[in-house]
Amino acid sequence: MTYLTNAAGRSVINEINGEPSILFKGVGKFKPEGNKHGPSIASCSDYPSDGNKLVNDLREALERADLRDGMTISTHHHFRNGDFLANLVFDIAHEMGVKGLRWFPSASFPCHAHLIQYLEDGTIQRIEGSMNGPLGKFVSEGGMMGTGVLRSHGGRYQAIQDGEVKIDIAVIGAPAADTFGNANGLSGDSACGLLGFALADSQYAEKVIVATDNLVEFPCFPWQIQGNLVDYVVEVEKLGDPSLIISGTTQITRSPDRLLLAELTARFCETAGIIRDGFSFQSGAGGTSLAVGEYFKNIMREKGIKARFARGGSNKYLVSILEEGLVDYILDGQTFDLEGVRSMAENPGHVWTSPFTSYNYHGKGNFAGMVDVVILGATEVDLQFNANVVTHSDGYLLHGIGGWQNCLFSKTVILPIPLFRDRVPVVRDRVTTLCGPGELIDVIVTERGIAINPLRTDLIELTKSSYLPIKTIEELKSEADRICGIPDPPDLEERVVAAIKWVDGTVIDVVHQVSARHR
Amino acid sequence: MTYLTNAAGRSVINEINGEPSILFKGVGKFKPEGNKHGPSIASCSDYPSDGNKLVNDLREALERADLRDGMTISTHHHFRNGDFLANLVFDIAHEMGVKGLRWFPSASFPCHAHLIQYLEDGTIQRIEGSMNGPLGKFVSEGGMMGTGVLRSHGGRYQAIQDGEVKIDIAVIGAPAADTFGNANGLSGDSACGLLGFALADSQYAEKVIVATDNLVEFPCFPWQIQGNLVDYVVEVEKLGDPSLIISGTTQITRSPDRLLLAELTARFCETAGIIRDGFSFQSGAGGTSLAVGEYFKNIMREKGIKARFARGGSNKYLVSILEEGLVDYILDGQTFDLEGVRSMAENPGHVWTSPFTSYNYHGKGNFAGMVDVVILGATEVDLQFNANVVTHSDGYLLHGIGGWQNCLFSKTVILPIPLFRDRVPVVRDRVTTLCGPGELIDVIVTERGIAINPLRTDLIELTKSSYLPIKTIEELKSEADRICGIPDPPDLEERVVAAIKWVDGTVIDVVHQVSARHR
Repeated sequence: MTYLTNAAGRSVINEINGEPSILFKGVGKFKPEGNKHGPSIASCSDYPSDGNKLVNDLREALERADLRDGMTISTHHHFRNGDFLANLVFDIAHEMGVKGLRWFPSASFPCHAHLIQYLEDGTIQRIEGSMNGPLGKFVSEGGMMGTGVLRSHGGRYQAIQDGEVKIDIAVIGAPAADTFGNANGLSGDSACGLLGFALADSQYAEKVIVATDNLVEFPCFPWQIQGNLVDYVVEVEKLGDPSLIISGTTQITRSPDRLLLAELTARFCETAGIIRDGFSFQSGAGGTSLAVGEYFKNIMREKGIKARFARGGSNKYLVSILEEGLVDYILDGQTFDLEGVRSMAENPGHVWTSPFTSYNYHGKGNFAGMVDVVILGATEVDLQFNANVVTHSDGYLLHGIGGWQNCLFSKTVILPIPLFRDRVPVVRDRVTTLCGPGELIDVIVTERGIAINPLRTDLIELTKSSYLPIKTIEELKSEADRICGIPDPPDLEERVVAAIKWVDGTVIDVVHQVSARHR
Repeated sequence: MTYLTNAAGRSVINEINGEPSILFKGVGKFKPEGNKHGPSIASCSDYPSDGNKLVNDLREALERADLRDGMTISTHHHFRNGDFLANLVFDIAHEMGVKGLRWFPSASFPCHAHLIQYLEDGTIQRIEGSMNGPLGKFVSEGGMMGTGVLRSHGGRYQAIQDGEVKIDIAVIGAPAADTFGNANGLSGDSACGLLGFALADSQYAEKVIVATDNLVEFPCFPWQIQGNLVDYVVEVEKLGDPSLIISGTTQITRSPDRLLLAELTARFCETAGIIRDGFSFQSGAGGTSLAVGEYFKNIMREKGIKARFARGGSNKYLVSILEEGLVDYILDGQTFDLEGVRSMAENPGHVWTSPFTSYNYHGKGNFAGMVDVVILGATEVDLQFNANVVTHSDGYLLHGIGGWQNCLFSKTVILPIPLFRDRVPVVRDRVTTLCGPGELIDVIVTERGIAINPLRTDLIELTKSSYLPIKTIEELKSEADRICGIPDPPDLEERVVAAIKWVDGTVIDVVHQVSARHR
């Protein structure tokens, strides 16, 4: 393992978990070679002729799938912090005495802190996937044997498709499934809307297990997961805690500071001419993002226009925009509340998508680039507009990447962020961890001014005579530093605990272990 | 090239078009090895960032896709005998001076007789795909340079998936498409319902061109073909002749003989207990099959029961069964009339499927085996219940396989066929061409009696005390021979003009050139 400097000027490693890695070469610069991964050819002669793949329980399915030491086991995160299934899978692996597994979730959540015991006892060798909260902390403090690998939703699809990560066994939690393995997320106690994060797993894993707490009669339609790709179906009592899988209510922020960020963002879009008939947008399910959506809605109403499509996680606010006829389509990747689930089941214009359609950079295009404006968060940005979304300024890895990197390919990327959090400045000389190159980030909206990336001379021109508080990023940083003081750098050790992949599978940065002195 | 006898006792060749071929080993006996095909990995950096892949015309698209001598070009047959696109593709290839192409359609029709000139001048070296009518005759008489290969719909998916046929350029005619390449068959002048026959092509071809006469705004939804797999989009004036793409009206037979076959078939199913609440069936769009469906409908009404799903090509009769609530789902692979197209666009229970979901034998199961009863045709059957569906008894190759072989995996397979056609007996000592092994064919229904495969002791038992005219297959043959006389064998030459693949890619039989003496 050698430290080398990549095209973004970050010192990274050329070997991760014993495998060579490719250094980030710049946006759009790395050209993949070779062919997409093909899993083993199956034959219907090895499957029940009546299509019934039900086996007694998850342990039997894992045994039949030949769970062994060192395998790669994947799960999806549509059950978010309410997931029971991933914990159950590794409880069984532990019972079976299996060791050295690679857990490859589409993301992990605080509910998965249960798995720390298996990271400690060697059942799980490493996690490749976003780690939100306790698992991230555990990794940051050096507790995990292997090196974590964080990928965006699109990057995870890319890695699977390209054969960079070969999944031995995919365990797909399905809120509704038939005995053939057709599955969707639309009904049942664990309804989560869609199962797009498990699509690649179903297509490319060697063995696919569908676990459901709601077995329905064939055909389970729509088949978001196709039974033709499934080996075994099992019933489990409960896939998760419904109240944590899906929020009963998503709420717009009431914080005056965050409402100001949202309003400034929306006004910026209006002034720059982005909000026009037939436009498209993506904003997340965080309080500020939701508020941006509400401002967009009001502006559309005022102007008497409508959007063509909205991308992204759905919620009651986005659904109300659809049902009011202010947008033709929601192209949804993740459903955040009960209204989102209801709408996806009822409204033909509420379309479930996957990281393949929306984000995979090693496809023949994807939807991300077609979105007119995307509103994203960040933990830090720097003077080159580079941004961090996974670590805090103290070096702790506490957040996942999600679709964040993928969304940077939108026509305009806006980050509404506070200028400082808990007296720690958000605008830095250099981000602690680089997740997104500055050339793709167009606008930083803070409560004390808006900075436009100098590359976007068009946006600078369109807004220069407006009432908007346009400043340079340097001005914003000076202001933050003046108020908070110059922050200390994080206290980090040499050991790399995780690598951050770019959307094309190259290494854009690494995360170092947080020094024991600092904890 | 050597003649060898396969497990079905047919003398076949072990090399086709210079490539080694695997002999049929028996139903379920061949175990595939290796991995599914992976086409080259693409990168979004090579595609327009705004997702607009429109190029000026089809020639430009073919040139950009680097059309060259010896390539494999695929098309689909959802436009049936109204297709203009395949002819246009090869007109351009001819203009460009390209030679030695393999045309790989999902099927060809009489409208493609236009291409005989290109088979003669070497633009096209061979056709791999079903040949209905004039092209089949041309091949039978030895006109084609290479050897034809006929595959079932599922077998075509299998061959593409397994890398047995690598498609260089897929040209997909799309009744509706956006500039990103998302496409469906639901609207526009060329509406054909669905595009399932082109699914494999879109997934596995190196280059994919979507041609449309109805460009719609992004997103074209549902995306039966996903734009993420598409290289170029072109507009053409007309994809085909709407009156030949989709019938305005499908008609039930009025022939008393064929109505009798249909009624006997339905009564057999009723007597054998196949028509019960929640059952499933598939019957085609031919006049007799349609009539069987109508008898099923009446029986369901009488009994006050309903079917869970109907598989297969949809038409106004099947739609009326759905809309009357007598079946929950139509799992449709091919839409035959305007009512079918309307229903697919309107009814959530009218579901588009593909050869992947329905028929691919090299998947982890498929839908075919779940169907309780399927009604199919045949040109010949023999005393072992083997059946032929591609050649006439004079050896002429005039029909495609379609999904016929795949449907044989249904729980009960019934062939309602006349005992003789034009005084040529349909029940033979040995079929001219073997398409389906007798062990999968359960019942032969003729106007002079019903023969049950001795393997199906259950059906024999269930119907033995009924009023149905149950006979042995030998009795049926004697009766036909008594009326028509013992037929002469076909007059064939040694040269093999086409091979018939089984659902697993093995060679089940070959078709010989028809002797010049016989023409």
